[in-house]
Amino acid sequence: MKLIETQALEQALAEFARQRDWDCFHTPRSLILALTGEVGELAEIFQWLRDGQAEAIMASGEAEHVRQEVADVFLYLMRLAMVLGIDLDAAVRDKIALNAKKYPPLHD
Amino acid sequence: MKLIETQALEQALAEFARQRDWDCFHTPRSLILALTGEVGELAEIFQWLRDGQAEAIMASGEAEHVRQEVADVFLYLMRLAMVLGIDLDAAVRDKIALNAKKYPPLHD
Amino acid sequence: MKLIETQALEQALAEFARQRDWDCFHTPRSLILALTGEVGELAEIFQWLRDGQAEAIMASGEAEHVRQEVADVFLYLMRLAMVLGIDLDAAVRDKIALNAKKYPPLHD
Amino acid sequence: MKLIETQALEQALAEFARQRDWDCFHTPRSLILALTGEVGELAEIFQWLRDGQAEAIMASGEAEHVRQEVADVFLYLMRLAMVLGIDLDAAVRDKIALNAKKYPPLHD
Repeated sequence: MKLIETQALEQALAEFARQRDWDCFHTPRSLILALTGEVGELAEIFQWLRDGQAEAIMASGEAEHVRQEVADVFLYLMRLAMVLGIDLDAAVRDKIALNAKKYPPLHD
Repeated sequence: MKLIETQALEQALAEFARQRDWDCFHTPRSLILALTGEVGELAEIFQWLRDGQAEAIMASGEAEHVRQEVADVFLYLMRLAMVLGIDLDAAVRDKIALNAKKYPPLHD
Repeated sequence: MKLIETQALEQALAEFARQRDWDCFHTPRSLILALTGEVGELAEIFQWLRDGQAEAIMASGEAEHVRQEVADVFLYLMRLAMVLGIDLDAAVRDKIALNAKKYPPLHD
Repeated sequence: MKLIETQALEQALAEFARQRDWDCFHTPRSLILALTGEVGELAEIFQWLRDGQAEAIMASGEAEHVRQEVADVFLYLMRLAMVLGIDLDAAVRDKIALNAKKYPPLHD
């Protein structure tokens, strides 16, 4: 079973970029800068919160903002994977398997 | 159709964290710092490359390194979505729809 | 000769934070998240530019914006150094000396 | 009084880059990616710590590591200011004055 429907996502994002003439902007370095920008926006929402407040944020007026920033990070990451020719679904499965070997479980 | 199999991913990552006693570490602020670290590792791979070299990186010895860093960014982002109670699949679909309104297509 | 007037900067920033009751917010992890946010804002200004455009940005209407973001990164970094008890001037001098050993000059 | 000895720093860093043929690499976008990488390394040191542990880090074996990463962030930021023609000392003074207006003191 696939974890990420890479093909459907690629089709949707490729069409989106093509219809807006964005392909020429989406170089790997530009997409990593865009990813940095989005992670920065997420960080700004949480920067002055205490850990307890951070966990309660989704019950606050900031919930939709957080949800959109999380989606933005994903969308630029997916687009970066596409322009690099990385199958994100396969990369994620392989990394989970690698992590399982690198960090053996402490218990069941 | 789902774009991201949130439920299967959540089960896999929740079990992974539970078996290693990592749940107490995975607060929202810690996961955003971890995300910053992984985006930083991606940035380091590309920092001194020219745009042409960046596009050729997947034909170089760095390809597997890039693939793993891209997967790491996804895994921390997915985990952040989980601890915040965000359904990443729904958030991504909603953001694509929002972007389509915000940036109308220039042509077919 | 000092490169950074750490003492004068510390006095100014400590008084600034005290007068606004900000000290309790300025924990190391919060300041690193704030630093991430500011670097993200810098990245956003440059994300879709080609290298030639990036070099010309200070002749554009974005010049003052860039200047302020660069200053913001410095101010959070200086504040982080302060709360960690790091003398930024000494740390920078030591790092320049270390880099000089690690990367010997190729020529005069 | 200057807060940052921009001229002395610029001379030192310009000579350092020239002697190693690094000037061609130090474009604004590359320096922002390098800054992202260094902030990411700082974030990694602090990502799994609780706030209390973060404050005690300078009494731990990680102290010198933290000190070097803080210096690295400064050095790339200073270099970015240089290639953009920004006088970091003036930019920082101006930003402190601007912040003082934007956030009036709550008390003496």
